[in-house]
Amino acid sequence: MGGISYTSDGIAESVVVSGGYKDDEDFGDRIIYTGHGGQDAPGGRQIIDQKMERGNKALANSQLNRTPVRLIRGSGGDPKFSPKSGYRYEGLYQVTGHWFETSRDGPLVIRFELIQIAGPPPIGNSSEEDDGIPAGQSNPKRRASSGLSIVRDPKVASWIKKTYSSTCQNCRIVLSTPAGLYSVGAHIRALGTPHNGKDVVENVLSLCPNCHVLFDYGAIYIEADCKTVVTVDGGGRKELLTSPKHVIDEESVAYHRLHIAGNHM
Amino acid sequence: MGGISYTSDGIAESVVVSGGYKDDEDFGDRIIYTGHGGQDAPGGRQIIDQKMERGNKALANSQLNRTPVRLIRGSGGDPKFSPKSGYRYEGLYQVTGHWFETSRDGPLVIRFELIQIAGPPPIGNSSEEDDGIPAGQSNPKRRASSGLSIVRDPKVASWIKKTYSSTCQNCRIVLSTPAGLYSVGAHIRALGTPHNGKDVVENVLSLCPNCHVLFDYGAIYIEADCKTVVTVDGGGRKELLTSPKHVIDEESVAYHRLHIAGNHM
Repeated sequence: MGGISYTSDGIAESVVVSGGYKDDEDFGDRIIYTGHGGQDAPGGRQIIDQKMERGNKALANSQLNRTPVRLIRGSGGDPKFSPKSGYRYEGLYQVTGHWFETSRDGPLVIRFELIQIAGPPPIGNSSEEDDGIPAGQSNPKRRASSGLSIVRDPKVASWIKKTYSSTCQNCRIVLSTPAGLYSVGAHIRALGTPHNGKDVVENVLSLCPNCHVLFDYGAIYIEADCKTVVTVDGGGRKELLTSPKHVIDEESVAYHRLHIAGNHM
Repeated sequence: MGGISYTSDGIAESVVVSGGYKDDEDFGDRIIYTGHGGQDAPGGRQIIDQKMERGNKALANSQLNRTPVRLIRGSGGDPKFSPKSGYRYEGLYQVTGHWFETSRDGPLVIRFELIQIAGPPPIGNSSEEDDGIPAGQSNPKRRASSGLSIVRDPKVASWIKKTYSSTCQNCRIVLSTPAGLYSVGAHIRALGTPHNGKDVVENVLSLCPNCHVLFDYGAIYIEADCKTVVTVDGGGRKELLTSPKHVIDEESVAYHRLHIAGNHM
């Protein structure tokens, strides 16, 4: 028993933490979990890059679609949180991030951040193949939530949106609503752990929410010239909308390319 | 002194709460604030619908773009929180929601929810016309955040996304990322206060993030037939993508049309 299990639809169901990857880090309610693939033998040396496929893709999809996964700890894991023998179901976790990292052996591995969900809703029994309409909730409950959020400087995003008149620098759409124009001030190298990007205009793009999702999930990246956008699937290339007033930080773009899109170039 | 002040760019700067609208509700760190316009005299009878224009649009824009506004309380407001005389600067608030409501006199008013921001970043002096590049933050700080969040049934959104293969029911886009396809399971009548929609598939659409913004800000709405999407600005009409498996709740659609798009029909 080990690793990531997922349905035939590619939905992650459970994750086992049992010490198979030396880089896993267990903090109890927060886990940094290494994806699978690319080792010469289970628990062995990393010889090729991990890819966004199979269980890795299923876990990333849980992040994208905000579906919780079951966590199982095995006795091989961190003794502080793991059972003395066998395996134990530990409740539901949310995948809150994933990124590529250079492993000790060289090739890229994919790391996932999992955060425990307080008072989780029951997931139901996955063995019953359930294609019926879910009952849902007529009166959905609330729960207290807390955490750390990054204090952004509102002037940074405002300046970016104004500089590009809220136009998406990738697809050029301008979203118009009765409340005004809208674009996201999207950080190239993300703020906060583990990426620690800067909240400065050189690290921010004006993107529509759709292109923001594509960018944050590595479906598109920017080349070293800071003006060509590449679509990973199919390799389409397109000119980034730029402004002479706005210098884009080359290092942030390189960081995104490596750690988010998993691209060495 | 009173009401909503905003820049020539249409950005809200400050809001004065001083008892001018009988429907204002002050809970200290949370305020339900009534927009302006449509009265026969200041503080008088509501004779026509309030419109998403001037200060109202500026406040809605603060919500859309997440820019904080200064709150000023005057002595005419709720005595529990207001100064005994004159006006007092009360710190920064975030606009977290807005909706249309039928006033006691009949016509629609726009109501805004304002939530106090803990440990707010300084906004700077607005009198200096500042078009320079903001300094931003190389090492952005974190702050503890807490609140109540709605516990959604993950099966509801999953069912919707699966039923439409993650296709946007408005624009038909399918967002494809290395982590899989993505669409939002968007509630027609929003969950939680003040809308209290149900977390059931009849109240959820599959939308791309862009159309989700358009829908939540009332740039588009659905007609009573539950299959025609109307663009408010320009009045374009388009067929909603539907599925025989998915019944859309007519009352939720009517609620959205009235309270979010401000449309009586």
